[in-house]
Amino acid sequence: MPSSEAERRAGGRQLYELCGSDPARVFSPYCWRIRMALALKGLAFESVPWRFTETERLAFARHDRVPVLVDGDRVVVESWEIAQYLDRAYPQTRQLVRGEPATYAFLLAWADSVLFARASRLIVSDIPALLDARDRAYFVASREARYGMPLPLVTADRDARLPEFRAQLQPLRRVLRDQKFLGGEAPDFADCAVFGGFMWARVVSPLPLLAPDDAVFAWRERMLDQAGGMARRIQAAEVTPP
Amino acid sequence: MPSSEAERRAGGRQLYELCGSDPARVFSPYCWRIRMALALKGLAFESVPWRFTETERLAFARHDRVPVLVDGDRVVVESWEIAQYLDRAYPQTRQLVRGEPATYAFLLAWADSVLFARASRLIVSDIPALLDARDRAYFVASREARYGMPLPLVTADRDARLPEFRAQLQPLRRVLRDQKFLGGEAPDFADCAVFGGFMWARVVSPLPLLAPDDAVFAWRERMLDQAGGMARRIQAAEVTPP
Repeated sequence: MPSSEAERRAGGRQLYELCGSDPARVFSPYCWRIRMALALKGLAFESVPWRFTETERLAFARHDRVPVLVDGDRVVVESWEIAQYLDRAYPQTRQLVRGEPATYAFLLAWADSVLFARASRLIVSDIPALLDARDRAYFVASREARYGMPLPLVTADRDARLPEFRAQLQPLRRVLRDQKFLGGEAPDFADCAVFGGFMWARVVSPLPLLAPDDAVFAWRERMLDQAGGMARRIQAAEVTPP
Repeated sequence: MPSSEAERRAGGRQLYELCGSDPARVFSPYCWRIRMALALKGLAFESVPWRFTETERLAFARHDRVPVLVDGDRVVVESWEIAQYLDRAYPQTRQLVRGEPATYAFLLAWADSVLFARASRLIVSDIPALLDARDRAYFVASREARYGMPLPLVTADRDARLPEFRAQLQPLRRVLRDQKFLGGEAPDFADCAVFGGFMWARVVSPLPLLAPDDAVFAWRERMLDQAGGMARRIQAAEVTPP
């Protein structure tokens, strides 16, 4: 491990990504957007594990959360900014934000305010088990404050709420019945953005968010197959047999 | 009025639009998408009033519903096809479908399956009053079959359900806090698509779908102001004082 952030940043391309005890199990939906974007573009990167309580390690980026991309002497923060930066910096790679960037805003807002917000209420109680003690204390306290209740209570009736969650995916389902990807014939940043939410859930929780006969499930399989199956190789939460 | 559809189609640009007894109160959300697209492009058109039970009048288009656009010797059906046709046929006008058309699919699916579907459960019982007897019989029978109950029952508790409807607009609200339009600085077909749903509601129902302090309300005002206030001049349903 390099002796300092400065030394680490001395060259190459690094993506600071959220993880827990196991640095290989990256799980932030926003980091996954960029991990997948880099993979679709064929841009290699070094994953730099980062944990919730390591804010000071991002001081060099004048930012307090991941993803942070270091690309040679460039530092870029926020997944949407990073996605657009990558298209500009590497015009010869697959362009993931096509046409007018503003037209992606609605899908990104839906992913945040519907997909991630509702998925969180189904899986948030699975996350503490992935974290070291210090991160766990921070995470539990901040999320319990957000939900106003203990995390096991947030997800207590999750099996009963799964049908309602799946119903909320109807716009996604309708598109993916007619198109292979949200981007059309091939995935674009819309696919990365939504897939990030599903990878987050897959890595942290055994809850089956999608039924196997769902067009969204089939799309997720196609995304898992992208870039030589990069996402599929990340360890998923184990499904405990009932 | 021309003596036949063939004679009417002999030249110019006509948009077949859904209306009730009053031909000026066009109310189909899908027709509104195209009415607005034509207005934003500055393309004049003759509105051809069409009613639910006049399927045979669309035989020339080999189609059974509106919008139908007749543009000289071209006949184009389905709002999404018409939008793309207009951009191709009039490249010198404002382009409303920018970049990859597939990237609009998610927003269109959300408009159909969330906005229109949920708005319908709030306003559907207001529609029969706009229709002539024959259309009213068709409309009430087909919609009662869809909902499995009398239309007044579908909307009976609508005041109580309004907050939940407004909550479903959160992705829209989030975008419109940061952008003037869904298309960015100026409206594009995404704006037309969503605005169509709000015009449908505005023309048929006195129910205030949006609160005045909502960013979506402010956006709707901006859309009402487009093209010299075209949409604002269409008579809205009257709000009955309580």
